[in-house]
Amino acid sequence: MRSANKLAEDYIAAWNETDAKRRSDLLAATFAPDATYVDPLMRGTSRSEIDGLIAAVQGRFPEFRFALAGPADGFGDYVRFSWALGPIGAAPVAKGTDFIVRRGDAIGAVTGFLDLVPAAT
Amino acid sequence: MRSANKLAEDYIAAWNETDAKRRSDLLAATFAPDATYVDPLMRGTSRSEIDGLIAAVQGRFPEFRFALAGPADGFGDYVRFSWALGPIGAAPVAKGTDFIVRRGDAIGAVTGFLDLVPAAT
Repeated sequence: MRSANKLAEDYIAAWNETDAKRRSDLLAATFAPDATYVDPLMRGTSRSEIDGLIAAVQGRFPEFRFALAGPADGFGDYVRFSWALGPIGAAPVAKGTDFIVRRGDAIGAVTGFLDLVPAAT
Repeated sequence: MRSANKLAEDYIAAWNETDAKRRSDLLAATFAPDATYVDPLMRGTSRSEIDGLIAAVQGRFPEFRFALAGPADGFGDYVRFSWALGPIGAAPVAKGTDFIVRRGDAIGAVTGFLDLVPAAT
């Protein structure tokens, strides 16, 4: 069973993977098939829908990467962590905090909050 | 329907209410009967169990009060906020971030994370 931090790292890796096949493999290794995702801007109710959400965000911010902002924290089936999104090597333009409910070693549900929203949106 | 911030304020007020009858009334006005609560230290699976958890924390820290640490943030059925616990007028000894899933105007589920843990525990 992955640690909270490893689960968060694998989650971020999926968000950063732009190769569709590799991203699909990462998602399959980390998300339950019926995993859900919701944040103030979008929602997905299956692993394949989440794949589509990630692809859409990558298309909108093609030069940006997600990074964990500090270590993840977890207990029981619950994990939380903060992240930053921005151009490689530059200050982040968006930040957020995600809450995850695990189902065993997989992600069952993600609820995302925004801590910093891009000024242009 | 209460705003995210009002819901958080009412939640904190219940945690601070030491009169059993008034606390029960506050809980009834804010939590669903089958509301759940979980944090790294304790768990409750009904409003009455949550009442018992609050009474236990009050008994352990009789001179302490909870306060919201900044405004609550919410979208859809989801609310998050941070809090601080400490003696009135002194620096907090514990801090945390709670994540709530609403059921309409009521709290359906609380997942609590600890940001600062009392040194004595």
